[in-house]
Amino acid sequence: MTLFVDMDEVLADTYQAHIDIYNSEFGETLTREECFGKEVWQCVPQERQQSIRQHARTYGFFRDLGIVDQSQEVLEQLNQKYEVYVASAAMQFPNSLEEKSVWLDDHFPFIPWQRRILCGDKHILKGDILIDDRSYNLKNFSGRSILFTSPHNMNTNGFERANTWLEIADKLL
Amino acid sequence: MTLFVDMDEVLADTYQAHIDIYNSEFGETLTREECFGKEVWQCVPQERQQSIRQHARTYGFFRDLGIVDQSQEVLEQLNQKYEVYVASAAMQFPNSLEEKSVWLDDHFPFIPWQRRILCGDKHILKGDILIDDRSYNLKNFSGRSILFTSPHNMNTNGFERANTWLEIADKLL
Repeated sequence: MTLFVDMDEVLADTYQAHIDIYNSEFGETLTREECFGKEVWQCVPQERQQSIRQHARTYGFFRDLGIVDQSQEVLEQLNQKYEVYVASAAMQFPNSLEEKSVWLDDHFPFIPWQRRILCGDKHILKGDILIDDRSYNLKNFSGRSILFTSPHNMNTNGFERANTWLEIADKLL
Repeated sequence: MTLFVDMDEVLADTYQAHIDIYNSEFGETLTREECFGKEVWQCVPQERQQSIRQHARTYGFFRDLGIVDQSQEVLEQLNQKYEVYVASAAMQFPNSLEEKSVWLDDHFPFIPWQRRILCGDKHILKGDILIDDRSYNLKNFSGRSILFTSPHNMNTNGFERANTWLEIADKLL
């Protein structure tokens, strides 16, 4: 069985990084909870939105992201049972590509380069299961689609959902 | 119809770049013809092989590759008729990832980021046609597989073959 796992907001805590950089830059105290149902840039005054939209285009941003809780332990176990690929729709941000590779080397070394995919659109993926936080990736996937909870997708319906990696373990291990 | 097109030795002339760098470094006059049926590193004295094997790990190598004859014109026409993706098994060389993106921006701007794939193993691709110079990529593809001629695959049998982009045009346009 082939299992595809998204990277940003599933393995790497991109969402929190946006908040942390914003709070640091503007001396604010924005929290994840205040952002439920929205992208981070939608939670700040309009004149500051462009600043947040530049994060992902900045060298270093994808290099130092935090790790989503329990993702390492559970994915390592899943990797014994499934053919696991990490698949990130990252081509929009050419600066991110090498940083994502290095980040995986550091935190998910059991996913070798043969099992890594950087793409623009995930509907070209052929496999059995996709875990992703974006409904537009899941809805074109022909296998089992699991929506991984992120603040921005709190109000998204119509998908099998996992709130944590422990829930992923319950479903798939 | 979804058409996947490999990058190295199909769009980008990686093979010639290996020869050119080798000749320049060692004052040699190695030609493509002398390499038929082999990788470039297999055509040089053993003590120089490691030098060639380092090319792909060197920053700048993938940035300045030549363009395979007629690939731009034919692929632009194919792009009108098919859903064209460029798919490169590049994850082994993290240094190459951003350079490949920039190279495509320069030479194939009609293939936007949404239609670019960098991966380790191509058997996860779901689509109708794959053009590639590597038999190990083609043999696991479930659609129509077309072997694009490169010096190293001159002796490879068992695949539909295209020697040039004009032959690709004849087949697919």
